[in-house]
Amino acid sequence: MRTLNVELAERSYPIHIGAGLLSNPALILPHLKTRRIAVITNDVVGPLYLDAFVAGLEAQGLRVTRIVLPDGEAHKDWQTLNLIFDGLLAERCDRSTTLIALGGGVIGDMVGFAAATYQRGVPFIQVPTTLLSQVDSSVGGKTAINHPLGKNMIGAFYQPKLVLADTTALNTLPDRELKAGLAEVIKYGLIRDLPFLEWIEANVERLLARDPDALAEAVERSCRNKAEVVTADETEQGERATLNLGHTFGHAIETGLGYGEWLHGEAVAAGAVMAADLSRRLGWLTDADVERVVAIHRRAGLPVKGARLGAERYLELMAHDKKVTDGTLRLVLLKAIGHAVITAEARADDIRASIDACC
Amino acid sequence: MRTLNVELAERSYPIHIGAGLLSNPALILPHLKTRRIAVITNDVVGPLYLDAFVAGLEAQGLRVTRIVLPDGEAHKDWQTLNLIFDGLLAERCDRSTTLIALGGGVIGDMVGFAAATYQRGVPFIQVPTTLLSQVDSSVGGKTAINHPLGKNMIGAFYQPKLVLADTTALNTLPDRELKAGLAEVIKYGLIRDLPFLEWIEANVERLLARDPDALAEAVERSCRNKAEVVTADETEQGERATLNLGHTFGHAIETGLGYGEWLHGEAVAAGAVMAADLSRRLGWLTDADVERVVAIHRRAGLPVKGARLGAERYLELMAHDKKVTDGTLRLVLLKAIGHAVITAEARADDIRASIDACC
Repeated sequence: MRTLNVELAERSYPIHIGAGLLSNPALILPHLKTRRIAVITNDVVGPLYLDAFVAGLEAQGLRVTRIVLPDGEAHKDWQTLNLIFDGLLAERCDRSTTLIALGGGVIGDMVGFAAATYQRGVPFIQVPTTLLSQVDSSVGGKTAINHPLGKNMIGAFYQPKLVLADTTALNTLPDRELKAGLAEVIKYGLIRDLPFLEWIEANVERLLARDPDALAEAVERSCRNKAEVVTADETEQGERATLNLGHTFGHAIETGLGYGEWLHGEAVAAGAVMAADLSRRLGWLTDADVERVVAIHRRAGLPVKGARLGAERYLELMAHDKKVTDGTLRLVLLKAIGHAVITAEARADDIRASIDACC
Repeated sequence: MRTLNVELAERSYPIHIGAGLLSNPALILPHLKTRRIAVITNDVVGPLYLDAFVAGLEAQGLRVTRIVLPDGEAHKDWQTLNLIFDGLLAERCDRSTTLIALGGGVIGDMVGFAAATYQRGVPFIQVPTTLLSQVDSSVGGKTAINHPLGKNMIGAFYQPKLVLADTTALNTLPDRELKAGLAEVIKYGLIRDLPFLEWIEANVERLLARDPDALAEAVERSCRNKAEVVTADETEQGERATLNLGHTFGHAIETGLGYGEWLHGEAVAAGAVMAADLSRRLGWLTDADVERVVAIHRRAGLPVKGARLGAERYLELMAHDKKVTDGTLRLVLLKAIGHAVITAEARADDIRASIDACC
């Protein structure tokens, strides 16, 4: 087991990464306020892991409430969030109950938001079971649900007490989701860690073949990057926004097509290619740099062209982005491979041209 | 104008109290992040104050989005909250937009919760227009909506940047709401400020007659008490819970009858009498003390008997209270007039007896 720490003063917490951690409830016990917990999962992950996970916790004398939600981004909404509140209130879970999110990014984001707002805040623990949630969404305290007009529009910054990333869980992940998770892994290389990008380029086939050592290495190096950025800028006043490389374009695809058509990682991959193309138009990247961005996503089995929504529809959807400040759209672009910035320098003409070129 | 400060390190903020403050936008300008604001009110307060208030702000060069919600506790729910998000997104309000809550406690709680969660947090300002919201709910950062199973069950601790209490607005308040506000004023005297209780006992007729000096004095002394408690215990780990004197019984009345039947302050008044009666059963108050609690509420025109729900129904509803910890109900009771404590000492038999005696 490898352990990293997210350093946030009194909100600091550990990330444990390794094989078989789901079967080790002793890792969870020190982080509970009382013996009362609620495990929240979805109807895909639940049948695979819930019974054994809960049995392990109950064997430690914990009283466990189970809540199973419908799976998928299309359910990351208020109605589904409310099923969590209904379940907690029906079983009289109080303010000292710890919520445990067992699942991927959607479960983690929703349970985190439920924890941030149930009785004005209860503790929670992330147990991510997908590559995407292990390398990105479970770390850093961004929680949210979607609104029909924009992704992750309603949410809170709310840190977990612990992240437990069991790499064994990746064995049951569908291929498409494994690839989608790689989009966020590649992202860290592109925005701030050139040696990691080179490592991914050398090991992408091992990752796709689910080599356990390669996956553990990718999860650890991703989490280390994420933890460093979150420590420096918890509430996204500056550097943290660079973690959103490809996300502004990607969210437009997800919202424009309806949540759940493209996986989040797929949309981010196409968005990263658009961002690279736009960075080239600003004179920051070479043609070879852009080809390198395209190539690594293609090798990871990810889309390198966006959905054909039309440039105007993209711009309209992007105007709702959370990085818009005082009416001005800001984008995460690449000054170089391995160095992202947040900028308002891109002209609308160039943005349109990049969208047209990459769809 | 009188000014108090709520001292919470980087989350500190001023409370301005005085006549005519709604007509003085210069008080608001220093607290805005950008020139983009959204004023959210309800369909009772809106017709009285919205046009003039917004005109004053627009004259200062601000761009203002208006959102008008249906009035009342029955609308303090997700559906109504979502109308705020719809309005903000439709007009592309971004993360730097400041939300202004213009109205009573329901508006303040909902706009505060919207501010806590829109795009993971935007700044907000409280402009309370009722006595209850000026003396209590606008100060201290408790925000929430109701759930069918419990009042204020979904919410956040989220502080405003400024509270602007215009005592002139109390002139348009219906008598019933003025009286309901007095319940929270009396509460401060009962829990921690005996000289203030004595002042209220000497001045309750002036308050009911809306004597401007008496009202300003009551608002200031209430806010000073509230600010002191919130500074000492922002997230209700201890002392802050004493502000909930009468609220556990009161919330049971509100939830049990359906939101909006009783005003919040009315339910709190009846609840305070029940808490006093229970304190007597624990040997902490004398018969004369309880009679004093009954008398001041009666003189303020407030109910001193609870709704007849039956003791079992009360206990069932009270089991959802946020002060329940690890399954144990804790109540705010009076060790003496002017000194509240939070305690799990009351036996269920005594609680039942107090409910039966006071309904």
